[in-house]
Amino acid sequence: MDNLLERFWAGDQRALARAISVIENNDAGRDELLAAFSRKAGQTYILGLTGSPGAGKSSLVDRLTGVWRSGGDRVAVVAVDPSSPFTGGAILGDRIRMQDHSEDQEVFIRSMGSRGSLGGLARSTKDVVRTMDAFGFGLVMVETVGVGQAELDIMNVADTVVVVLTPGAGDGIQTIKAGIMEIADVFAVNKCDLAGADRLVMEVEMMLDLGRGRSGWRPPVVPVSAQTGQGVTELAETIQRHREYKQSSGLLLASRRERLKAEVLEIVNYRWRCLVDSRLALPGGARELLARVADRELDPYTAATAILAEVAGNAGN
Amino acid sequence: MDNLLERFWAGDQRALARAISVIENNDAGRDELLAAFSRKAGQTYILGLTGSPGAGKSSLVDRLTGVWRSGGDRVAVVAVDPSSPFTGGAILGDRIRMQDHSEDQEVFIRSMGSRGSLGGLARSTKDVVRTMDAFGFGLVMVETVGVGQAELDIMNVADTVVVVLTPGAGDGIQTIKAGIMEIADVFAVNKCDLAGADRLVMEVEMMLDLGRGRSGWRPPVVPVSAQTGQGVTELAETIQRHREYKQSSGLLLASRRERLKAEVLEIVNYRWRCLVDSRLALPGGARELLARVADRELDPYTAATAILAEVAGNAGN
Repeated sequence: MDNLLERFWAGDQRALARAISVIENNDAGRDELLAAFSRKAGQTYILGLTGSPGAGKSSLVDRLTGVWRSGGDRVAVVAVDPSSPFTGGAILGDRIRMQDHSEDQEVFIRSMGSRGSLGGLARSTKDVVRTMDAFGFGLVMVETVGVGQAELDIMNVADTVVVVLTPGAGDGIQTIKAGIMEIADVFAVNKCDLAGADRLVMEVEMMLDLGRGRSGWRPPVVPVSAQTGQGVTELAETIQRHREYKQSSGLLLASRRERLKAEVLEIVNYRWRCLVDSRLALPGGARELLARVADRELDPYTAATAILAEVAGNAGN
Repeated sequence: MDNLLERFWAGDQRALARAISVIENNDAGRDELLAAFSRKAGQTYILGLTGSPGAGKSSLVDRLTGVWRSGGDRVAVVAVDPSSPFTGGAILGDRIRMQDHSEDQEVFIRSMGSRGSLGGLARSTKDVVRTMDAFGFGLVMVETVGVGQAELDIMNVADTVVVVLTPGAGDGIQTIKAGIMEIADVFAVNKCDLAGADRLVMEVEMMLDLGRGRSGWRPPVVPVSAQTGQGVTELAETIQRHREYKQSSGLLLASRRERLKAEVLEIVNYRWRCLVDSRLALPGGARELLARVADRELDPYTAATAILAEVAGNAGN
């Protein structure tokens, strides 16, 4: 473990990949690694990209990676797909789409699926992002497929959230979820050369007009084409502007503090549920109380009181 | 409290309304009431209705109430609207739409909104349904507006779930959520006299053909018109068939047992979170640990371990 950490701090990407695997698989040394990384992390800017499947997020990530690499930043990408069972190193799809950067030692790509996600995918994503942060990337991009609750939770890790929309892909203003509108710091209207792109830009602007005014930052709407590269520089500049806004307003520091606090409580509650589960795996006690409730011999509230005392009594000692 | 229970068991509807208020407002005696009701409950059949706003769920509930009342059953209705801040007795809207039954002492209607929902609306809905169950209604109908996660959770209380769709209301097959398809035991295509109703029925049937075969029960698709009453008898009969299927297959007993067990764990975890919150309200201890994490003096995992021990140590004594 000391050897792994040593190689990690020396900047060995294989040590980074190994550390991520240890964390994801809950192998021995996981907590030690995470504690070490937590103390180091907090320097990296975290950019989230989300949107419907087929919106072109991956291609945009590829383009943005190019922009930041040419600026000298080391970039890491976490591609999260809650519907995929695959977790691990860069899968074939990543290699193909990230071919511009596959030979670049300063770019690191990791795919995450629903498998091997101890405590939920959002939880694992946070741990992986923290590991990349500690490793010293200037920028970590988190890309998620889809716009459900899982993706909203994942986006909670990001300092800036880009929502990617496309014309004619069911991304009409009626179908945009309320939750998505609230987390967007920047809108990217991709495939901006397609018919309907201008209209979509206008619709999003109108929706922003109607929405409750958020003081300080109105999410800009940037037409872009990941295919041709049109608008990519403007998108990167807009993201940079949001970054500067968050820094100068104090929001970056405040939101990161709140996020860290929330994360501690998530871990507390997750561990609590694990303790409950492990008591239920044993015969007698909590397990028997549950059976008696199912048999309607005991009411749920009395059983809950007894189980809480049992699990807490065990955890508190 | 003894007096309230006495009147409740004697069948006094004002005592029922009062008991529900005590439970919703977390007034003194709440746990005692819920424990008493839990021991009695388990006789009532629970029917859930969900679907998009404007699908005509309320009118269908009204029609179905008529069917069951004419069969001699006492019926209770819980109308849950997560977007409404109102909770309480039958509100004006209910009185208007349920005018056929407003003079009927054997029909009881309760509206629930997001206010006064200790531990979440799904949690409160379960408690209110259990109270109605203990009171002795033959059937409790739970109606929810919308099709989000909150509504899916609420529908988890039902023995039979009816999903209400309408033609031309954005209920095209593309927009039906995956979660909704999985919880549906019966589909009601309301406003079946409108253009597109036949097509919608066909689309749902095709989707059921494509879906993974659930052994034993294929959700029937019933065209219905709440306005004219067409198809309402068929819908009630289909629900009855599903009820008989669940009873004879043993699924009713099994699912209710699982639901009770899950409910105990929900209560355990909810109370745990309340304990954590109450520790955080005090100075020092857990609260200070959180602040140190936010200051990056301490990593989240070490803090979580300490907070867990602190809260559990306090709860276990």
